[in-house]
Amino acid sequence: MSSSRLRIDPDRFWMTVERSAEIGAGREGGLSRMALTEPDREMRDQFVSWCREAGLEVTVDQVGSIFARRRGQDDSLPPVLVGSHLDTQFNGGRFDGIVGVLAGLEIVRTLNDAGHVTRRPIEIVNWTNEEGGRFPPPMTASGAFADVYSVDWVHARQADDGATLGAELERIGYRGVAEVGGRPVDAYFELHIEQGPELDAAGIDVGIVTHGYKSHGLRVEITGETAHAGPWPMEKRRNALVGAARLCVAVDDIGWRYAATGGKATAARLVAWPNKAGILSDWAEVICDVRHDDPESAAAMAEAVRKALPDAATAAQVEMRIVEEWEWGGAIFDEALVGSLRNAAAALGQRTLDLPSQAGHDAYFLARICPTAMIFTPCRDGITHNNNEFTTRDRQVPGVDVLLQAVLARADRAGP
Amino acid sequence: MSSSRLRIDPDRFWMTVERSAEIGAGREGGLSRMALTEPDREMRDQFVSWCREAGLEVTVDQVGSIFARRRGQDDSLPPVLVGSHLDTQFNGGRFDGIVGVLAGLEIVRTLNDAGHVTRRPIEIVNWTNEEGGRFPPPMTASGAFADVYSVDWVHARQADDGATLGAELERIGYRGVAEVGGRPVDAYFELHIEQGPELDAAGIDVGIVTHGYKSHGLRVEITGETAHAGPWPMEKRRNALVGAARLCVAVDDIGWRYAATGGKATAARLVAWPNKAGILSDWAEVICDVRHDDPESAAAMAEAVRKALPDAATAAQVEMRIVEEWEWGGAIFDEALVGSLRNAAAALGQRTLDLPSQAGHDAYFLARICPTAMIFTPCRDGITHNNNEFTTRDRQVPGVDVLLQAVLARADRAGP
Repeated sequence: MSSSRLRIDPDRFWMTVERSAEIGAGREGGLSRMALTEPDREMRDQFVSWCREAGLEVTVDQVGSIFARRRGQDDSLPPVLVGSHLDTQFNGGRFDGIVGVLAGLEIVRTLNDAGHVTRRPIEIVNWTNEEGGRFPPPMTASGAFADVYSVDWVHARQADDGATLGAELERIGYRGVAEVGGRPVDAYFELHIEQGPELDAAGIDVGIVTHGYKSHGLRVEITGETAHAGPWPMEKRRNALVGAARLCVAVDDIGWRYAATGGKATAARLVAWPNKAGILSDWAEVICDVRHDDPESAAAMAEAVRKALPDAATAAQVEMRIVEEWEWGGAIFDEALVGSLRNAAAALGQRTLDLPSQAGHDAYFLARICPTAMIFTPCRDGITHNNNEFTTRDRQVPGVDVLLQAVLARADRAGP
Repeated sequence: MSSSRLRIDPDRFWMTVERSAEIGAGREGGLSRMALTEPDREMRDQFVSWCREAGLEVTVDQVGSIFARRRGQDDSLPPVLVGSHLDTQFNGGRFDGIVGVLAGLEIVRTLNDAGHVTRRPIEIVNWTNEEGGRFPPPMTASGAFADVYSVDWVHARQADDGATLGAELERIGYRGVAEVGGRPVDAYFELHIEQGPELDAAGIDVGIVTHGYKSHGLRVEITGETAHAGPWPMEKRRNALVGAARLCVAVDDIGWRYAATGGKATAARLVAWPNKAGILSDWAEVICDVRHDDPESAAAMAEAVRKALPDAATAAQVEMRIVEEWEWGGAIFDEALVGSLRNAAAALGQRTLDLPSQAGHDAYFLARICPTAMIFTPCRDGITHNNNEFTTRDRQVPGVDVLLQAVLARADRAGP
């Protein structure tokens, strides 16, 4: 069979998605498979076992990312990477990230069935801690692969219970020895559910991602002083919780100011200590982020948050300082690679929709070191990071077939 | 020796306070002896052991309050109760509550040394969970003693880790069998550090508490919906954390509106779920309270908080409901008993200062069922619920001597 006639096996593909949905069950059909927890370990074990059954060589790097390699005719050429992430949010869905990794597996199985060995090797990748829900910030492992973060810094990320990412990797047996990044990659493809409503509303199954929303994230520490909730005069109060709350409101207000142009601002996390009835808190932390399609507007939103800090601090008579900042997005995906997705879709008779990505994705970091492109697939009403995240086999399969054709074209192309 | 010449032993008294300060050490000299934790158990064991050495009969009631009884000449008469609490806040001091219980112990030891048996029995009491820091609301056990709360309701109070107050009493061996309240009490005296700066500033060691600030507390539950922090449009967001933050800011603003007349409003606690980077929270809880010397102003402040709920809920597009409300204070202490404190101070040549109490105290609930009075003793700069809470032996002893004389007068008086 000519490689252009190759199609994935929809049932086999969907069976793997359904098997994944059994591991780390959360609320009402959702998943709670936070990075490096027992469910994440179980899913990794299942994935590795599938990869080995497919004849792939599995390596794990020092930040726990899993690479499953299918040898190429010329195995000395840089590999084509295909993947995403298998971890979820605390209240996550069954598809976010997952369909991207399992699409890679299905592509390899399809090539195996056809006996087609590509010129370049293909590697399926599962990036560690994409969500960052347990260990902020998100996309830590792909960031390290792209040399944005150091391995030591990634290992030092901390969960609420004090556990570090490095120690948890060790505990679940996924602290590998492979060097993180530092090797040539021919191309990176990532298929992901849209996490927005456009494809679903348009009745189109394949989204071509043109670029990522620019995002700026901040972690802010607030310092006050404990005192009695009763007698202590308002004038003397230095309640860190009040400072944190004022900052969260300011962030939300900034989101509303930019809502008309599609901007978003999120107060995602507030932790205070001691955070108990009867006492003022002397410490708090806020994690927030801002996002905008226009990088300049995103930068202005981030600057507005920074400027809101002194006002919130003064009103609550506390100190605030930014202890961490991160940013991503704005990446321009590779023109040739995006073109190969369009060509594959056209050859398969699939309608496509051009879309920006509003979420964070490992692809943003990969775009810094190799040609990168993303396919979006539909999710119902755009609902995600929620147990009601939903899609069907038949709305995912067209995207995976497009991905298969684009990967084949890339991996088989002539040249070095 | 005539009983009017009796004085406590300052060194012996202070030794017990210093021993207590070794149990449950917190930050930099403070205590972290939350109700029904291991340190609370250890302190209870130490207290019971001291009481037994002093020949007292110890009973524990069904909500864990400890009563140490010294028999009277006519032991059928209702007892005079003296006490406070041995638990602390998460970041608590070494004196709050503690000096009141240990003052009771020192009084008994002084009477033992003098061989003076009072006409009525005297009972020292340690009320369970006065702080409410681990199991809100505060003063749960004295509330049950005064029949404001049922025993079952007290047992069902829950800590952050899910443990219930009843199960934790059982675990540390202090779920007693004695009925909670339901018996006549002749009078209740409570000595407590002021938790305000007045006595310290005036250089006076004995405060006569005239009444308690009226306090209203609320626990509010906020319900939203999880969604992705990136693509989800501002118009659709139902971030429970933002609703909770807006409520906390509204509460703080109400405090400032009443600050000129000494009112206070506290956003004490905010918990959100999942409260993670990358996702909107679908649940949050806020505990807040308002306090004012004037009960009508306190009620107006509480009403202002209730009215702030719909605005905060609308702005964040979430639901809010009050799941619990409590109130205390405004209690008018017993005129005769307050008079006996003034008389004792005068006889000892101690200057006194009349003060309202701005904090919550077990005495408020006791005032509902028996004549009640409170003595305040100084604390440096009024700092409390903080590891820097500080006072000295010599500024506490005058209050304890006044307490001794007042308790003696009450316990020895004629009549039924």
